[in-house]
Amino acid sequence: MQPGKLNSITDIEGIRVGNVTLNDGEIKTGVTAILPHGGNLFREKVMAASFVINGFGKSIGLIQIDEMGTIETPIILTNTLSVGTAFNGVVEYMLSNNDDIGNTTGTINPVVCECNDGYLNDIRKRKVEKSHVIDAIMNAEVEFEEGSVGAGTGMSCLGLKGGVGTSSRIIKLNGKDYILGSLVLSNFGVGEELLINGIKAGENIKSLLSRSDEEQDRGSIVMIIATDIPLSERQLKRVCKRAVVGLSRTGSFIGNGSGDIVIAFTTSNKVNHYAEKDIYEIKVLNDNKIDPVFKAVAETVEESILNSLICAEKTVGKDGHTKHSLKEYINHIHIDIW
Amino acid sequence: MQPGKLNSITDIEGIRVGNVTLNDGEIKTGVTAILPHGGNLFREKVMAASFVINGFGKSIGLIQIDEMGTIETPIILTNTLSVGTAFNGVVEYMLSNNDDIGNTTGTINPVVCECNDGYLNDIRKRKVEKSHVIDAIMNAEVEFEEGSVGAGTGMSCLGLKGGVGTSSRIIKLNGKDYILGSLVLSNFGVGEELLINGIKAGENIKSLLSRSDEEQDRGSIVMIIATDIPLSERQLKRVCKRAVVGLSRTGSFIGNGSGDIVIAFTTSNKVNHYAEKDIYEIKVLNDNKIDPVFKAVAETVEESILNSLICAEKTVGKDGHTKHSLKEYINHIHIDIW
Amino acid sequence: MQPGKLNSITDIEGIRVGNVTLNDGEIKTGVTAILPHGGNLFREKVMAASFVINGFGKSIGLIQIDEMGTIETPIILTNTLSVGTAFNGVVEYMLSNNDDIGNTTGTINPVVCECNDGYLNDIRKRKVEKSHVIDAIMNAEVEFEEGSVGAGTGMSCLGLKGGVGTSSRIIKLNGKDYILGSLVLSNFGVGEELLINGIKAGENIKSLLSRSDEEQDRGSIVMIIATDIPLSERQLKRVCKRAVVGLSRTGSFIGNGSGDIVIAFTTSNKVNHYAEKDIYEIKVLNDNKIDPVFKAVAETVEESILNSLICAEKTVGKDGHTKHSLKEYINHIHIDIW
Amino acid sequence: MQPGKLNSITDIEGIRVGNVTLNDGEIKTGVTAILPHGGNLFREKVMAASFVINGFGKSIGLIQIDEMGTIETPIILTNTLSVGTAFNGVVEYMLSNNDDIGNTTGTINPVVCECNDGYLNDIRKRKVEKSHVIDAIMNAEVEFEEGSVGAGTGMSCLGLKGGVGTSSRIIKLNGKDYILGSLVLSNFGVGEELLINGIKAGENIKSLLSRSDEEQDRGSIVMIIATDIPLSERQLKRVCKRAVVGLSRTGSFIGNGSGDIVIAFTTSNKVNHYAEKDIYEIKVLNDNKIDPVFKAVAETVEESILNSLICAEKTVGKDGHTKHSLKEYINHIHIDIW
Repeated sequence: MQPGKLNSITDIEGIRVGNVTLNDGEIKTGVTAILPHGGNLFREKVMAASFVINGFGKSIGLIQIDEMGTIETPIILTNTLSVGTAFNGVVEYMLSNNDDIGNTTGTINPVVCECNDGYLNDIRKRKVEKSHVIDAIMNAEVEFEEGSVGAGTGMSCLGLKGGVGTSSRIIKLNGKDYILGSLVLSNFGVGEELLINGIKAGENIKSLLSRSDEEQDRGSIVMIIATDIPLSERQLKRVCKRAVVGLSRTGSFIGNGSGDIVIAFTTSNKVNHYAEKDIYEIKVLNDNKIDPVFKAVAETVEESILNSLICAEKTVGKDGHTKHSLKEYINHIHIDIW
Repeated sequence: MQPGKLNSITDIEGIRVGNVTLNDGEIKTGVTAILPHGGNLFREKVMAASFVINGFGKSIGLIQIDEMGTIETPIILTNTLSVGTAFNGVVEYMLSNNDDIGNTTGTINPVVCECNDGYLNDIRKRKVEKSHVIDAIMNAEVEFEEGSVGAGTGMSCLGLKGGVGTSSRIIKLNGKDYILGSLVLSNFGVGEELLINGIKAGENIKSLLSRSDEEQDRGSIVMIIATDIPLSERQLKRVCKRAVVGLSRTGSFIGNGSGDIVIAFTTSNKVNHYAEKDIYEIKVLNDNKIDPVFKAVAETVEESILNSLICAEKTVGKDGHTKHSLKEYINHIHIDIW
Repeated sequence: MQPGKLNSITDIEGIRVGNVTLNDGEIKTGVTAILPHGGNLFREKVMAASFVINGFGKSIGLIQIDEMGTIETPIILTNTLSVGTAFNGVVEYMLSNNDDIGNTTGTINPVVCECNDGYLNDIRKRKVEKSHVIDAIMNAEVEFEEGSVGAGTGMSCLGLKGGVGTSSRIIKLNGKDYILGSLVLSNFGVGEELLINGIKAGENIKSLLSRSDEEQDRGSIVMIIATDIPLSERQLKRVCKRAVVGLSRTGSFIGNGSGDIVIAFTTSNKVNHYAEKDIYEIKVLNDNKIDPVFKAVAETVEESILNSLICAEKTVGKDGHTKHSLKEYINHIHIDIW
Repeated sequence: MQPGKLNSITDIEGIRVGNVTLNDGEIKTGVTAILPHGGNLFREKVMAASFVINGFGKSIGLIQIDEMGTIETPIILTNTLSVGTAFNGVVEYMLSNNDDIGNTTGTINPVVCECNDGYLNDIRKRKVEKSHVIDAIMNAEVEFEEGSVGAGTGMSCLGLKGGVGTSSRIIKLNGKDYILGSLVLSNFGVGEELLINGIKAGENIKSLLSRSDEEQDRGSIVMIIATDIPLSERQLKRVCKRAVVGLSRTGSFIGNGSGDIVIAFTTSNKVNHYAEKDIYEIKVLNDNKIDPVFKAVAETVEESILNSLICAEKTVGKDGHTKHSLKEYINHIHIDIW
């Protein structure tokens, strides 16, 4: 399948991504914000679903996504112990832009996902502040860096430096080009399990990896999938469930301590907070035509994870802990990548 | 809230119900068929969802209802050990009407729910035959009996004779009258827990009940909810989850051995098996307007259960086991019912 | 069934509850902390499960409770927009007591549940601070107030003043007395639906209620169930699912905007964070004997909700919004309560 | 990881597998029975869980497995339209061996899973009879054939002939060797997606495959996982969720029409139907030690699927439809397999 123009989740019109990177000595962390569209997200919610592959994680907001089928705030990624601050940052941003929230109407449902970067980052210091969260939202753009940036700054994945990765695929429906993209925050797995395009790359580079695989228990991966294809909440849940295919093909066996979380949304079906009609119409995909969507999910999640690895930089963090970049080892792996 | 014209699930246009009653000595059982509409159900599926309140039950077809969001056959209710035969009956009926099934297209997903009538019925004899299932489908009509008929022939509920019950409520949306109805097969609970309109009727009649409450472990209730309101699969799942309100208010505490199953469908959104379009439209309800729907579910399920009791006849079955009718005791209960 | 000594969740040995109340003009809010036992919760986790009846809510920590079957922090209740601060408070408390967290071992899973008190409380001000959360934990005791205290300070329920309520039941197993208790934070429902002991009390007092039922969309209820009966995670999930019986019997029809959340834990099965054995033993209940547990859940949740109402005080809050106490109206309702 | 003695699910003591093969002209179907242990399964249930990866399927019994955490009958695999007959066969077998069922105690929960073999088999003829089901149970042995046998007789997988496959892995815990094995019924996927040990074998053999990929919509895979490791129901559910890793690595992207179902059970924790104690003990695994179990699931499911392919024979069935064996093509694929 063909990638979109930027091979990025932002190939879907309206989506933007912002990173705030905290990289100073033993502090290797940050915030990544994904904005589903450029308007007022509270007033115009996007239709969404989530799926928990493995629930060893502290994500916020998934329960309401599944009950109401919508996302109404930016999606924030950060480190595990900063989830509360990310919640507070989203609340501050949303209240400052919506006088009605918590006053003449209900509250909001911040969506925050996390991985534990405690191997490279002194996570106990909790250096993420509300302002970082708001900055990540405010700075969001169509073009953004991958690898050791934003929430990915201190992440480790498959024995290497992990982080933020993205990619996209074009899907033709009704004679028109649609896009499905994903963005991952990769922080899972054991080095020797690394698979690249089916090759057992982990076995090639095992001897090169430092002996730090004890961090396997503290992993996680967040996978955000977006599309402009009209999908119902049920179909978005089905989309979420296919992310595990791409994940499995990079070497995950869904370890005990890895919070593996998927969120999917479509920019095609929007839900108006102040909708006046009792009954309205949404567009959905014919389920008989959904297989290319599922295949695109598998491909793009696999590629986004590999992109997070290949874009990440070697990082020396807390206590001298070190994670190497896939770039350093790629010559030891006898494969063509993509 | 006001009931529909017949106070029945068949107040929703197109729905019909058929009963085949096997009542002969120690055989007290039967089949109840619910037809979601009068056309070809395989070609024009109705949108649906299900919910398992308590999974001590042997229902068939729920997994695919939830994955695909549709029902494509009549819904069959029968006794526990006849589920396989009911499956076979549905298959035979569907194959005889659709040459394509299992040949040029896929198979079908029969929906069969059950309760254990083994207290009054010699269930080990398995007297339900395929032809009974097909007859229940063929005989389905808008007007049908409640109480000790069809699958309800041998059921026991709250220490009394249970069976089939139905009711409906009118809901006004967009200035138009819609209908939500339910049909239950009641076979749960302990006599002393019976609640009627909030009154602890079970305590009034406890001394009148025979000592047969050991059958509490073999109960179950099936609740089928139907409407012509346009709802998405997510909303239909929400509707299913409200059935427990009505159930609780009749005296259930969701006992260990009671398979408490809910299925909801709407006749408003149909899915064409051979749909050619890649993308199509469905109508959904504004979630901000859904509370009257939820309240109607609570009311109609509560009333359907009570109707199943008040319509049922005293029954003497296997080994002389006896269940009395609520009609016999109603004068002992100091309440106004409905 | 008989209540425990204090008719409280703290009848289960080791459980303590702490409240911090913020009641100053337009600020009507607070924090309630439930400590599952008196030891180090991170090192000795309690076995637990959760269930989402209706997911219009922002609770944190449920995903990991269900995946790992444990709770490893105090459970915090507060207002919706203070969930992030409650998370931060729990993190601070846990880190200060455990040097290993986020350093030599993984992170923690704070459990925070919430209701929206924005009708009486100026929730946009976000007056809850980390120190309030830590104080609620530090002040936890066996005896505590119910009603308009802690997280319950600004809550509204069934048209009246809601808040914190608790109760307990004794269950005899193997010839020994066990306890099951619940604590609720009540903030759901519409006045005219109020049921007390089966009586339609809401209809009696409807005319007395102020016209403020527009807040029905912003409700929620949190139900915490605890026991010293040995239960597996599967059984604890089953226990959670029975809370809805008690809820339904007080007048809820599980409204659209109500986040109805249940958490259950047992103090009997503890999981050691640094367990060295590969295989260990837990005690579980024979499922054939679980019905009294289910019935106790139904009873205690119903009573806890009513206790939250009867203990709450008339409150005048934001914009002069007023909620009356059930105490003021109880003479208008022709019932015997408990 | 090392396979067990037979590299089979029957390496776990007590498990036996029986096949009845119907292979006559256009009839290519059958029954496979898995017996969790050699005793009375109703009286001594095995602890179990299930997981639905994709619910386009008609399996029976999963709801009760998850509610009660047990399996109490043989597990039957067959074709989609024979699920009812398989149910009836299990009922007959169980009633004939247990006078109490449906009489002095409750009923039973038959577990039946299915795939659609309608491409090679004239499935509309429904040639499976009750006696075939009972024979498969009665004939079950430790050693059994793989490939085009039993329920696998008419199955197609990844463009090739599919069927029954098995394998096992040894896991050392507490200094002792335990076994985890799987048995699959493979009937999913598209030929060009086939992966063997990471190699895109499907692309190598694509040109050799006949043009029959329209059957992709009628696939499915059943994965039965068994172990003698003591696991709780929660842990067994986690085990089920890892099967998708192995599945993904053979080329599935979890297509729309594929009912992908997993059941896991342990022979270590048994539940006595007539247990007298109120409280009893079970053994569970320390979750911190569960990763080798998860890895074994991934490996054994991947290998079982490949074994089902390599053991299957070229088959010409209904309408001359033909599926080739992987054996015929293996020389075209440049890999070392296992």
